[in-house]
Amino acid sequence: MGKLRLFVDRLSQPSRAVVIFCLANGIDMEENEVDLGKGDHRKPEYKAINPMGLVPAIDDDGFYLFESHAILRYLSSAYPGIADHWYPADVKKRAQIECILDWHHTNLRRGSAGLIVNRVIGPALGRPLDEKAAAECEALLKASVKKIDALWLNESGPFLTGSPEPSIADLSLACELMQVEFLGEEFKSELVNPHPKVKHWLAAVEKALAPHFEDVHQKLKARAVMFQKRKEHGDSHPSSKVAAQSDL
Amino acid sequence: MGKLRLFVDRLSQPSRAVVIFCLANGIDMEENEVDLGKGDHRKPEYKAINPMGLVPAIDDDGFYLFESHAILRYLSSAYPGIADHWYPADVKKRAQIECILDWHHTNLRRGSAGLIVNRVIGPALGRPLDEKAAAECEALLKASVKKIDALWLNESGPFLTGSPEPSIADLSLACELMQVEFLGEEFKSELVNPHPKVKHWLAAVEKALAPHFEDVHQKLKARAVMFQKRKEHGDSHPSSKVAAQSDL
Repeated sequence: MGKLRLFVDRLSQPSRAVVIFCLANGIDMEENEVDLGKGDHRKPEYKAINPMGLVPAIDDDGFYLFESHAILRYLSSAYPGIADHWYPADVKKRAQIECILDWHHTNLRRGSAGLIVNRVIGPALGRPLDEKAAAECEALLKASVKKIDALWLNESGPFLTGSPEPSIADLSLACELMQVEFLGEEFKSELVNPHPKVKHWLAAVEKALAPHFEDVHQKLKARAVMFQKRKEHGDSHPSSKVAAQSDL
Repeated sequence: MGKLRLFVDRLSQPSRAVVIFCLANGIDMEENEVDLGKGDHRKPEYKAINPMGLVPAIDDDGFYLFESHAILRYLSSAYPGIADHWYPADVKKRAQIECILDWHHTNLRRGSAGLIVNRVIGPALGRPLDEKAAAECEALLKASVKKIDALWLNESGPFLTGSPEPSIADLSLACELMQVEFLGEEFKSELVNPHPKVKHWLAAVEKALAPHFEDVHQKLKARAVMFQKRKEHGDSHPSSKVAAQSDL
């Protein structure tokens, strides 16, 4: 049987979730970088693997799959020895995880990804910035963080639904929230600090998944610093767009 | 054990998917209407069941759950005797269904729901119409229908992934696509007719789930006709907003 192949860019939050899941669970895999900044995701050879032209995707011995939550569920179910807490077999516990995973798409993810694209990295992806859209997404992101705090974190345990150990929902949501590094440390603090439970949860995810969580976020952190510096220097010369396109 | 309670509005596409699933599988349930037009979803007694204030939600003998896909997965797994084709136990078949369910949120659903709210029913929900947003959503909806045609319908069988029988993904996506009734028969034809496989698929879903699929869509069809008539009469008098709020 061929080794599991991942197609990812560590700057993409769902890509990171899949990479970290494999590392944390000792799944033998080959990580293939699909560099979004270089447009690798639009190349025909990649579209043969994921016709949507998005990351992440996997090739499990000829079985192609995309959508990060579907991949995380699949790996949890198809690979032997994955601890139950990642994707509980109990139907009610699992249903609560599914609820969070589904909610995520049109709330935390839409808020975070939309804000970052429209306020910071759009030009690097060939799209103009759009402050009106960014403001709407920022409101959705803040409301989403508040919902996580109010609904899914409690005294029973540090992870979502009060679990003592992390699930694939913790991984997906934490990787998404980390993406706000692109908006700078100050923004991240403003977003998270009003919600101590969320702050503790994020720290608990990082600790439970050490050293992989931090390692896999290195590329994001370095790139975020670069974008912040550019912003401080007011670098809006047209050539910066070209530079950004080649290196995001 | 108490009877399963559904909290739904049949004008909502994910609500219909859950109702039809229960009827088609003979699940003994009590359907409770949460009238979106009357703002029932914002009432404290409903928020005690679903703190998001959205439909659908279920109460399964004290176990509350929201997010329609999570509900459909849960009912498929927790209730005895649900045929395997709805949510296959085989990990690869299931993964393909999961991929479609996840893709749905930010593609077909976002396109369809966004288009309808921004072009037709917004005022009835207390939101202004927004033609720029409507046009973006229309493009996403059309691209999504094209993707369904190209990626998930094939000669092997009439349902998604070429299955001979429907899954919860067929049900969710078909109920979403039916929502374009709000834009009139002409729009629906323009959207679906260029893709004969999609047209056949929609007919196959309706037939496989007869008479429930058609029955559960009656409220939508009647309301859509009303909105279309209003539009033809150019009824934009402020009082029409109040009327619409009380009857959507």
